[in-house]
Amino acid sequence: MATATASPQSTWTKRHVLDAASLTPGEIDQVMAEAETFSEILQRPIKKVPVLRGKVIVNLFYENSTRTRTSFELAGKYLSADTLNFGVSTSSVKKGETLVDTAETLLAMGTDAVVIRHASSGACHQLARYFGDRVCVVNAGDGCHEHPSQALLDLFSLLQKMDSVVDKKIAIVGDILHSRVARSNIHVLTKLGADVHIAGPATLLPAEIHKLGCRVHTELEPAIQDADVVMCLRLQLERQKSGLIPSLVEYSNLYGINRQRLEEFANPNVILMHPGPMNRGVEITSDVADDPKYSIITDQVTNGVCVRMAILHLVLGAHGLTTGDSDNEAVA
Amino acid sequence: MATATASPQSTWTKRHVLDAASLTPGEIDQVMAEAETFSEILQRPIKKVPVLRGKVIVNLFYENSTRTRTSFELAGKYLSADTLNFGVSTSSVKKGETLVDTAETLLAMGTDAVVIRHASSGACHQLARYFGDRVCVVNAGDGCHEHPSQALLDLFSLLQKMDSVVDKKIAIVGDILHSRVARSNIHVLTKLGADVHIAGPATLLPAEIHKLGCRVHTELEPAIQDADVVMCLRLQLERQKSGLIPSLVEYSNLYGINRQRLEEFANPNVILMHPGPMNRGVEITSDVADDPKYSIITDQVTNGVCVRMAILHLVLGAHGLTTGDSDNEAVA
Amino acid sequence: MATATASPQSTWTKRHVLDAASLTPGEIDQVMAEAETFSEILQRPIKKVPVLRGKVIVNLFYENSTRTRTSFELAGKYLSADTLNFGVSTSSVKKGETLVDTAETLLAMGTDAVVIRHASSGACHQLARYFGDRVCVVNAGDGCHEHPSQALLDLFSLLQKMDSVVDKKIAIVGDILHSRVARSNIHVLTKLGADVHIAGPATLLPAEIHKLGCRVHTELEPAIQDADVVMCLRLQLERQKSGLIPSLVEYSNLYGINRQRLEEFANPNVILMHPGPMNRGVEITSDVADDPKYSIITDQVTNGVCVRMAILHLVLGAHGLTTGDSDNEAVA
Repeated sequence: MATATASPQSTWTKRHVLDAASLTPGEIDQVMAEAETFSEILQRPIKKVPVLRGKVIVNLFYENSTRTRTSFELAGKYLSADTLNFGVSTSSVKKGETLVDTAETLLAMGTDAVVIRHASSGACHQLARYFGDRVCVVNAGDGCHEHPSQALLDLFSLLQKMDSVVDKKIAIVGDILHSRVARSNIHVLTKLGADVHIAGPATLLPAEIHKLGCRVHTELEPAIQDADVVMCLRLQLERQKSGLIPSLVEYSNLYGINRQRLEEFANPNVILMHPGPMNRGVEITSDVADDPKYSIITDQVTNGVCVRMAILHLVLGAHGLTTGDSDNEAVA
Repeated sequence: MATATASPQSTWTKRHVLDAASLTPGEIDQVMAEAETFSEILQRPIKKVPVLRGKVIVNLFYENSTRTRTSFELAGKYLSADTLNFGVSTSSVKKGETLVDTAETLLAMGTDAVVIRHASSGACHQLARYFGDRVCVVNAGDGCHEHPSQALLDLFSLLQKMDSVVDKKIAIVGDILHSRVARSNIHVLTKLGADVHIAGPATLLPAEIHKLGCRVHTELEPAIQDADVVMCLRLQLERQKSGLIPSLVEYSNLYGINRQRLEEFANPNVILMHPGPMNRGVEITSDVADDPKYSIITDQVTNGVCVRMAILHLVLGAHGLTTGDSDNEAVA
Repeated sequence: MATATASPQSTWTKRHVLDAASLTPGEIDQVMAEAETFSEILQRPIKKVPVLRGKVIVNLFYENSTRTRTSFELAGKYLSADTLNFGVSTSSVKKGETLVDTAETLLAMGTDAVVIRHASSGACHQLARYFGDRVCVVNAGDGCHEHPSQALLDLFSLLQKMDSVVDKKIAIVGDILHSRVARSNIHVLTKLGADVHIAGPATLLPAEIHKLGCRVHTELEPAIQDADVVMCLRLQLERQKSGLIPSLVEYSNLYGINRQRLEEFANPNVILMHPGPMNRGVEITSDVADDPKYSIITDQVTNGVCVRMAILHLVLGAHGLTTGDSDNEAVA
């Protein structure tokens, strides 16, 4: 697989991955290279490598997300770390404990890394400032801000299909306003030279978003016209109740991605992506979501595990894995 | 321990265990033989064997069941697999994800086996059709349909007490209509030549159940008369509200198993079983449930772990375990 | 670190740790010595030791407590045991299963130790009586009765700061009535010769508590006057609703620990403790809780893991660990 840039492999120094905005192209490249290694390991009969044995990774999810949590949990297990779900809904947090007191508890118990999802933008930064170098923090989604591992796995998935994203037209479609996935992808993709277009109803487009370096459309067609990649976003169905969209049917009519639209407007080899879980028939129709000619949605899920292994491995300071160093020989 | 049939050990080919109905006597025999091996291993100080190291087993429980889930989770851990609970109540399933999209996610993340409990009969079959050979599926209870591992552990428990079930009179008593345990047991036991009788109130007997090869009674006495085995079923207490039984007291008076009835009607060496958890004083009284002369209820729980180890081991293609191949030597 | 008493290391015989009341000074000493060993191990890059490999430890929490549960779970994982959360809120317990039937299930499945938290005082004793020598029981809090591992970790934390607690004035402040932490600490500390004073509003002081060997005050000042240690208790905020305290503000005014009070009344080198999670601004203010000159609150959390490792290790009969016997050499 091609790497994101041509820069030589630098030494990783970050103890936290909090946002895509602050990742350099060289760092993105390094995540891609590590993920490539782990991708190969996941093909083996024994998918475990002992590189994080004795490390404790805590999933601290203030919002439910079985998919992302499971993806990080498996990434940790494949690396032989001990993984632990700190159940926030049943925890002392409910008894009024502050984020900093929870952090202090996790630090004191010997936690090596915390994967955090929080409804407040910046919660992960607060945690990382508190921990400093002592505990690694990985942002698994903070409010409407960022979801960097999603953008990195999306890039990894794209680079399995193309040598580089330079000058590729990539359309991100849907509820941009509330989407941390969109924001992180815009950062990564523009940084690497892609031509990023976003489209959605005006009520779901954040002000000043064009300052991130993307083109903004309130209609679908100009965004997906000749697009090399179309990335659908999940529509939070509760947005309708809050009046941001008139109806799901109307939304789907105007912004839903289906075969007819893809084939009429996009590049014939267009790649279709979705971070999941999908609302089939709303932002995407099954005829294209399940068509291997276009869709790499399943690859995104698989690559999520490899990319999260790479991130955990890098922040925990264990990079430079020898890929032969797997557990395969240890089993009959 | 005797095996269920005299057939020589065949090679296991199934990737899924979805129902007892489709298991051949040879396959049942093979599960019994494997379970016997694991039963011996569970007596050791170190109960772990490394045969499924690096395999990922996901518990996908759409209905709560701590007992069954824990039994499968321990079975996986004893085999050194990584086990993961995919919390359905908090998951993307709640966000409207279809079973197939959940399946696709689990497949893409590298899951090797899924243990599923679902309120809909046939959900596990849908999952298995989707996965094909790629991921193993074990049914841990689907609607009112089947619960094959329960029937297999019940058989295993019986075969610890008798050489064979051929011509043994086995009475299954209670809410047959809603009982997947009953249905799976009827399949296994009739297949192996037992004389199966079922008894319960007419409102809780399914139509056409006799076609499975059992004798049907609406009164308790003829069913347990001279019975070698009496298997009580758990009464879902909510059945009363739905009007299927007039009152718990009346149910207990007519169908409850107690010492007086066992001793008056059944074979003097009758074996008493219950899948748990028991409603003491409703379908069974403590005087017999806790009497080691009759009850093998605790053995059923223990054997549940061994039989589930056997099932996971067989479907994951790792049969032929050398029993000396344990982890015991690795520990001080 | 100094040990609690000068007694030579005796052989541990208890299979259960249910209360501090029945621990001998020699046993307390032994827990301290084991915990000291584990404390050193937790400083290593690989925090795992293989001493409980193949052992199954079940967390059976009938009351939520992420902190204590996580502390025990990590203790088990660091010892290489398989740990399992038996989710009571979703379990067969909800279906009306008795504690004894749950115990029987855990025993039958091969559980080696159960860590139990229960709203009823004595529930852990019932469990231990049932198990006898077959399964170890550790009390993680039973009603308003005891929480022995908390008292042992509090002692361990104190002994990192002083050679002995003999004749030290130790003030325990707050809701003594509902506090199992207070009760266990009073047992341990008086047993070892400390001068224990308790203070709280009369409505939150249990009758006859002085019989445990402590001095009782309804005002704060005499309790903390010249105190070497001040231990704040968490105020359950729901106590206010039940009329036991007039208001949080008034409670805080009368019994809250803050810098001014510590510096005016207590020993200049006073040590400040809190079992967490704190209600900042209620029973304790941040200016002292976060001041390393006084507070050892974070040490308490860290030591919780070591002390629980020691307890699990001792009851599971694996004492006499060679500290060189770690997993560090096994990893690249």
